[in-house]
Amino acid sequence: MKFEYKQVIAVRLDLKMSKGKTAVQVAHGSLSAYVKTEKYYPEWANSWLKEGQKKITVKIHSEKDITELAAKSQKSDLPFAIINDAGLTQLPPGTTTVIGIGPAPEKYIDKITADLPLL
Amino acid sequence: MKFEYKQVIAVRLDLKMSKGKTAVQVAHGSLSAYVKTEKYYPEWANSWLKEGQKKITVKIHSEKDITELAAKSQKSDLPFAIINDAGLTQLPPGTTTVIGIGPAPEKYIDKITADLPLL
Repeated sequence: MKFEYKQVIAVRLDLKMSKGKTAVQVAHGSLSAYVKTEKYYPEWANSWLKEGQKKITVKIHSEKDITELAAKSQKSDLPFAIINDAGLTQLPPGTTTVIGIGPAPEKYIDKITADLPLL
Repeated sequence: MKFEYKQVIAVRLDLKMSKGKTAVQVAHGSLSAYVKTEKYYPEWANSWLKEGQKKITVKIHSEKDITELAAKSQKSDLPFAIINDAGLTQLPPGTTTVIGIGPAPEKYIDKITADLPLL
């Protein structure tokens, strides 16, 4: 199967989050970026759902990495969402944990994230 | 902060998925259950987003656990989504990995999932 659309969620490994915590943060980033895409690029959102919502997680290592990915996404007009943890467990309140980008056409999103290693 | 709505994603631990694989499956279950909720109970979906999309992950241990949670959700008229892995990596194609339930009012969803341990 060929995919035209993809969503990428970049996860801060430096926070050493547990498996459950990581999963919830990734889901949060995925959903928030999807809601944003649905608002601004509804065709991307719908096509991605129909294709089976391809999503990948990649590793990053600092808050600065998140800021840089956000700046690149903005420059490329790609929808994104940064997640700040409520801090109820494990992390100080307001810690940025993940950034979700897209769904968006793979050819655009790859320009920003293709060099990041898979989680 | 008080939450009225919650989403629960139950994850099969018997599959021994990696952290990245788990995160993607949970995100997939979260988004698919959200899309279903948005369709049938749009007020639940919107209120949950506004509250900050509280979601938790819980542990289950077999495909039978997923089937049972699906049956209970259906009986309670709660929206849910079962995820079958495409099998591109790690798992045989079609393996059920997670079930996402809701978002739905906590009082309803707790009747089904409150006894499951957190991931």
